Amino acid sequence: MINMNNSTLDKLISTIAKLPGLGPRSARRIVLHLIKSPDALMLPLAEQLTQAAEEIKICEVCGNVDVVSPCNICNDEKRDDSIVCVVETVSDLWALERSNFFKGKYHVLGGTLSALGGRPPESLNFNSLSTRVAKGAIQEVIIATNATLEGQTTGHYIVDLLTPFEVKITRLAYGIPMGGELDYMDEGTLNLALKMRQDF
Amino acid sequence: MINMNNSTLDKLISTIAKLPGLGPRSARRIVLHLIKSPDALMLPLAEQLTQAAEEIKICEVCGNVDVVSPCNICNDEKRDDSIVCVVETVSDLWALERSNFFKGKYHVLGGTLSALGGRPPESLNFNSLSTRVAKGAIQEVIIATNATLEGQTTGHYIVDLLTPFEVKITRLAYGIPMGGELDYMDEGTLNLALKMRQDF
Repeated sequence: MINMNNSTLDKLISTIAKLPGLGPRSARRIVLHLIKSPDALMLPLAEQLTQAAEEIKICEVCGNVDVVSPCNICNDEKRDDSIVCVVETVSDLWALERSNFFKGKYHVLGGTLSALGGRPPESLNFNSLSTRVAKGAIQEVIIATNATLEGQTTGHYIVDLLTPFEVKITRLAYGIPMGGELDYMDEGTLNLALKMRQDF
Repeated sequence: MINMNNSTLDKLISTIAKLPGLGPRSARRIVLHLIKSPDALMLPLAEQLTQAAEEIKICEVCGNVDVVSPCNICNDEKRDDSIVCVVETVSDLWALERSNFFKGKYHVLGGTLSALGGRPPESLNFNSLSTRVAKGAIQEVIIATNATLEGQTTGHYIVDLLTPFEVKITRLAYGIPMGGELDYMDEGTLNLALKMRQDF
């Protein structure tokens, strides 16, 4: 029981409590905040959710989410068509876009292969990736899966997948993150950073 | 910039990011989760928010939020009218209701007085409290403000406010919380728990 005799609020709280990163306590806090101004906070949020639910599409080319398909990145003629960055999820794509450095196109896999099997390759967007590469216009594929066991497994799978094509395959650099203190780095990162050391 | 060229999602994310306890990162995560199933997740949430915004009322008696006013607690004839528990906020009321022990009525102040002044007593529901007590049916007022400086300041203010009336004024017990380990308690709590020690 979260509240009592009040099914409207109960239902709303338990819906919000199921969102990722939230629980009953944070859901109650959010609902109590929204209740303070139903017209200025609650209804606009409801409208924005409805609008998003109606407008959002998955890009048929790259798997990004947008209000148009192909998405605005795929449609952007100022971006380099010859270089494609492969990411696990849309949030990874957004993270790279925020860094505002990469000006090529993306391909969203929709997840990773499981290192121990279980998730079949068919569940991810590998087919559309090889179809895109097979067209011949892409010259470089940057593998930007996460630096986790599963991300790397997926990376190796992509390398195998794209070997038949004449395309350069690269991956993100591994090492000490900016602002990182050696004292707080795990041994794996330190070993890799030493192994991959570069001329100063 | 949270996303790009996508005002629907941008707007939704920045609205969610302003909710208490959330920020841009958790807002993006929530939106990406909702996007996965617009019909099963996004629209129901929008509908529940709309419904809540339309139905929710502030109880004219105690300040609780409910779909009716007076609220279901004030209306509940099985609850004891002669004892009123004064809390700072609706979330405090909900917390006490979850503990399922108190069977009297409530009075929600809507906040605390500031210990250094600044928030005037008129901004809180003191008037309606003394009006309720003045009617004579209330025999005990339990002050259940938080054990903070501001909560206690507010408590003292209520004691002064209710002195003219013939009503018993009590407050929640202070001490070691259940499951609390002495090693982790602050000195204030330990001093208080010693001072307030009870016969075994």
